[in-house]
Amino acid sequence: MTTQMAREIAAQPETIAATLDALLPLRDELRRLAADRRQILLIARGTSDNAAVYGRYLLEVHAGRGAQLGAPSLATHYQVRRDLSDTLAVSLSQSGRTEEIVAAQAWAAGLGARTVAITNDGASPLAWAADLPLVLQAGEELAVPATKSYSAQLVAVAVLADALAADPGGLEGPLRRSPDEVGRLITARAGIDEAIGRLEQADHILVSGRGLVYGTALEIALKLEETCLEPVRGLSYADLRHGPIAVVDEDTVALLVAAADGPLVGAMGELARELGAKGAGTVGIGGDRSFASACAIPVAGPDLPETVAPLGLVVPAQLIVEGLARRRGLDPDAPRGLQKVTRTDRG
Amino acid sequence: MTTQMAREIAAQPETIAATLDALLPLRDELRRLAADRRQILLIARGTSDNAAVYGRYLLEVHAGRGAQLGAPSLATHYQVRRDLSDTLAVSLSQSGRTEEIVAAQAWAAGLGARTVAITNDGASPLAWAADLPLVLQAGEELAVPATKSYSAQLVAVAVLADALAADPGGLEGPLRRSPDEVGRLITARAGIDEAIGRLEQADHILVSGRGLVYGTALEIALKLEETCLEPVRGLSYADLRHGPIAVVDEDTVALLVAAADGPLVGAMGELARELGAKGAGTVGIGGDRSFASACAIPVAGPDLPETVAPLGLVVPAQLIVEGLARRRGLDPDAPRGLQKVTRTDRG
Repeated sequence: MTTQMAREIAAQPETIAATLDALLPLRDELRRLAADRRQILLIARGTSDNAAVYGRYLLEVHAGRGAQLGAPSLATHYQVRRDLSDTLAVSLSQSGRTEEIVAAQAWAAGLGARTVAITNDGASPLAWAADLPLVLQAGEELAVPATKSYSAQLVAVAVLADALAADPGGLEGPLRRSPDEVGRLITARAGIDEAIGRLEQADHILVSGRGLVYGTALEIALKLEETCLEPVRGLSYADLRHGPIAVVDEDTVALLVAAADGPLVGAMGELARELGAKGAGTVGIGGDRSFASACAIPVAGPDLPETVAPLGLVVPAQLIVEGLARRRGLDPDAPRGLQKVTRTDRG
Repeated sequence: MTTQMAREIAAQPETIAATLDALLPLRDELRRLAADRRQILLIARGTSDNAAVYGRYLLEVHAGRGAQLGAPSLATHYQVRRDLSDTLAVSLSQSGRTEEIVAAQAWAAGLGARTVAITNDGASPLAWAADLPLVLQAGEELAVPATKSYSAQLVAVAVLADALAADPGGLEGPLRRSPDEVGRLITARAGIDEAIGRLEQADHILVSGRGLVYGTALEIALKLEETCLEPVRGLSYADLRHGPIAVVDEDTVALLVAAADGPLVGAMGELARELGAKGAGTVGIGGDRSFASACAIPVAGPDLPETVAPLGLVVPAQLIVEGLARRRGLDPDAPRGLQKVTRTDRG
């Protein structure tokens, strides 16, 4: 029996490639739109917010632009009035219909921001109201846990960062390689079943990553939680060390995620060793050779540079989540209590 | 037996008053320093980062300033180079010696930011290097879990927001009332023992708050975790609804925190009812009458407006944490595995 979630995971090489084809030609327009804008404000919730966390780091690290995560309640509830004429507001919503995101985009535009909407529905209110919609080519997503629309959001965010870099085009090569890398990870499934077996025995699961990969850790934690109905925490490396590390013991399994290069993989390997020494199980997705050897169960990641590694790193985690849900007798396509379009407020 | 943590909780009326006396006179200088600055960048980790989350909302809501939370790794590991000549960087560290915060402040200054350091040690490297140190009057803090230094950080952040508001001075009255309100909560202990008893039975604890009170929820979760060695999650109201609400059941106790007024207390009461309907235990700190009646165990909060309510709302939670740790046979003053000055990295 193949679940809808498994089919949507498997569709990602195709949906990433189609999204790249659709969005890469928009880079000149993005550059014009952002030319006089000092700040980028990312507006999102849930899975889309995890894509925004990647965007925040990538825009700062690769494009050298000030980027921050918006708090939608500042728009929808506090109705803050401040000048946003130096700001490009980038809103992310798979459906393009999450009311508070539509409202927050309108708030930003009303205060002078230019607006870009990243959405899977070009006919949605979010897309229609934006100065420039970046329409994902993920196709209809039927499983409640977002997979292919999430990776397409990462593509859109990477195209934006590539467009705004001082020297544009640097990410194009790795992005073009990403569909093949994702396809390879789905076919090989290296380490996936071992990881599922280990996570099945855990009393407490935590997920950690850092920097460009921090958003990936948050997304893995959210997917594990909403699909497997386990309380799971996604923590930055630094936040983990500032407190929660005190509760790590033999009942904990830590799922760690790292890129194969970049300035943070060394520290992630050290963290894996430290958690292992406390008796925790360690499942490591990606990283370099030293990171993999520091983790009890290494899971292969993509051969992509840190800047675009999140496109591939989430894929083994999606496979783990789908398999773990089935192992527990749950339906990964329709976890209880969740709807596809989330309404944060009734009123 | 009185613990050091209990003594430091009890000292807060005095340390808040002393910090107000020291910092309120610096508002003119803060205003001059920030006059030509469009952005405020808050730099912190751990407990200090929870104070920064309050600062982020208060600076936007009350002062109408763009405020964002910095990611220290952008400075220390990615060494991002971008123009910060429009930025006031505000660094928070109790000790003033957390290496990555000192490094991130130097990074910001090197890129053109003006710098304010909020620290409990005026002789620390962070204070010395700042354009203007805001030195807390919390006195020496001996218990590992920060309490009085945290509330003093909230005071500093509120003084900053009061200074930068279009119409300064609006927060002074409520701030001056806060020591008495905190003292009253410590003496009355209304609902504290019931809350401890209920949390003792919980399999899973989650903490939620929203907007100006979101940072309080994060701080309560961190304190519960590091002091009681329980995995606890602090979630925004919105993040909770975007996934984790699926795992709430009879084994969950939700600790909810809300101000007595403001645009979000109504939604927090609705959330309490919804969680209760799923069978979760609900402990509610603060809020209005409707919120308190929606929670199975209401705990009294301060009589302070939402803008400065976090100074009082954290106090009942500190009392709960201290009592719960003792009930569990743990030493609240020295939880395992934590040091007072956290080093995020070895190298």
